[in-house]
Amino acid sequence: MTEHSEDRREFLKVASLAGAALLANQGPSRAAEPGKAAAHSGQTAITAPTRFVEANGIRFAYRRFGKKGKLPLVFNQHFTGNLDNWDPAVLDGLAAEREVIIFNNAGVASSTGEVPATFAGMARNAEAFVDALGLKQVDLLGFSIGGMVAQQIVVDRPDLVRRLILVGTAPRNMDAGGGQGHVTPETAAVFGATYDPPENLWLKVFFTESEKSQAAGHEFLKRYFSRTVNRDVPVNEKVAPAQIAALGQWGDHPGERFAYLRDIHQPTLVLSGTHDTIVYTVNSLHLVQNLPNAKLVLYPDSNHGSWYQYHEAFVTEANRFLNEAEF
Amino acid sequence: MTEHSEDRREFLKVASLAGAALLANQGPSRAAEPGKAAAHSGQTAITAPTRFVEANGIRFAYRRFGKKGKLPLVFNQHFTGNLDNWDPAVLDGLAAEREVIIFNNAGVASSTGEVPATFAGMARNAEAFVDALGLKQVDLLGFSIGGMVAQQIVVDRPDLVRRLILVGTAPRNMDAGGGQGHVTPETAAVFGATYDPPENLWLKVFFTESEKSQAAGHEFLKRYFSRTVNRDVPVNEKVAPAQIAALGQWGDHPGERFAYLRDIHQPTLVLSGTHDTIVYTVNSLHLVQNLPNAKLVLYPDSNHGSWYQYHEAFVTEANRFLNEAEF
Repeated sequence: MTEHSEDRREFLKVASLAGAALLANQGPSRAAEPGKAAAHSGQTAITAPTRFVEANGIRFAYRRFGKKGKLPLVFNQHFTGNLDNWDPAVLDGLAAEREVIIFNNAGVASSTGEVPATFAGMARNAEAFVDALGLKQVDLLGFSIGGMVAQQIVVDRPDLVRRLILVGTAPRNMDAGGGQGHVTPETAAVFGATYDPPENLWLKVFFTESEKSQAAGHEFLKRYFSRTVNRDVPVNEKVAPAQIAALGQWGDHPGERFAYLRDIHQPTLVLSGTHDTIVYTVNSLHLVQNLPNAKLVLYPDSNHGSWYQYHEAFVTEANRFLNEAEF
Repeated sequence: MTEHSEDRREFLKVASLAGAALLANQGPSRAAEPGKAAAHSGQTAITAPTRFVEANGIRFAYRRFGKKGKLPLVFNQHFTGNLDNWDPAVLDGLAAEREVIIFNNAGVASSTGEVPATFAGMARNAEAFVDALGLKQVDLLGFSIGGMVAQQIVVDRPDLVRRLILVGTAPRNMDAGGGQGHVTPETAAVFGATYDPPENLWLKVFFTESEKSQAAGHEFLKRYFSRTVNRDVPVNEKVAPAQIAALGQWGDHPGERFAYLRDIHQPTLVLSGTHDTIVYTVNSLHLVQNLPNAKLVLYPDSNHGSWYQYHEAFVTEANRFLNEAEF
């Protein structure tokens, strides 16, 4: 066994702890706050029903709501996240101006199938999902590893995507501080620890240590639990290892660094926190310096969940961008 | 003579070429386009008269116009720039919501005195200018070396500054690609060349090589020449060497790298282009990763003049920030 695969094995062990934390993290552990913003379809992040569509032999779980008329915005989720892990403030803020579509990719939570061990595999499944909805073109958002899947979708199917939003993500061959399997040391440490209550994991993953950022984190947790009925099911124990393997393969990608980004001509909005410890901030700089037409926004004193901390600013920025502002 | 001082001597020789280009660059060489946006004071960047105020033994030339009511925004100018070098589209866009104040620091163009060889000296003069106007607090904008002066002003006089906008600038000990005197190799090359007409210098300094960016550059040059009466006088030959010396001292600053930024608590908006070759873009990342409360915006496919290329987006962003949006 090589040193590299030993490293990966060790990280997978750590990740199984994370899996335990996540499995324990699916139900509300405190009083919920009802959703405030009513989207124009009458549905919100709190009330939109979970629906299903079949493609590629997979039964995909998704929710679709928001104001009709513009291109829908399709969301690609972060590590071990399910339908409930999106911030309702962000979903409802965007749904006020367009349809939003959130879904579980294959093998995640209430979707059937297996999680592929590459983002290329996840992208193919996501493309099949979008095709199954009969959509010829969409706007695409990806958060963290979802941003890697989103990049791959645009590479595979350039005509399917009009505009791209990448949050807290990285190009192939990213900088991860020498962490094993291209996972930052902070990620391994934070996901390897236990939390009481378990959802406090997200205070570490998404927010900085500052008082202000932690306060924003507690507000986020309230929103996270504000959907109290028809919540999604937990992810199973096979999700984390497959997603981590995909991250390792993404980081190992051979060839000229960042060259593939030059072929992504969609207007792209890249966002992160000034202090993202999960996917280092500098990766967002690599993205905008190699994508032909990309703007960068970094929010102050914020970590991997910058857009949840600054959800109002994010919604303003993203709606403006999707409404075809030049930038 | 050390190798370092030889390098600097060589750069000063290059800079004298730049000086010649700049001296030749003060009058319009093409048909002018009148200013379009009327600021609320009735004055615009095209029509605002040049006024004078005395302080520190210096007679400062300045222009002040725009809608009264909020804190004025004071602008700190780039290398060898005078009152006419600000983009009228940016000035008028901001003047629609607040007073803007542009001025020549000591020794520059129509202001008397000598240009100090440090940004600390320039900051003291700028502070004397603001005090002489009777202003107890202002918002501050600095572009390129003007952003270095602006940082120093905030360090010197934290109570004088409410909010800070830093465009295309760098902290002390900046990254300049190993260029002599902390000047990037591209800067030395671009300012060392000659241009016909001379104002085409700015197409190289402010814009990328792309067709789209160059087209934006030609639009900028039209705006630059749109003030046809009461233009400022040229800078003299002593300005460039003193400003270059200040840049060298800023880059050499001893002590823990970027530590001084932690004491700047003003909400700060940092902006640059994704491909700034004059002050490398990565310096903007250093700024927001070390300032306690700073947001970064990088505009796509743009160089040192990113905010002139994306002047509409910049005006929207800056007005929102100065109107006390959180970020």
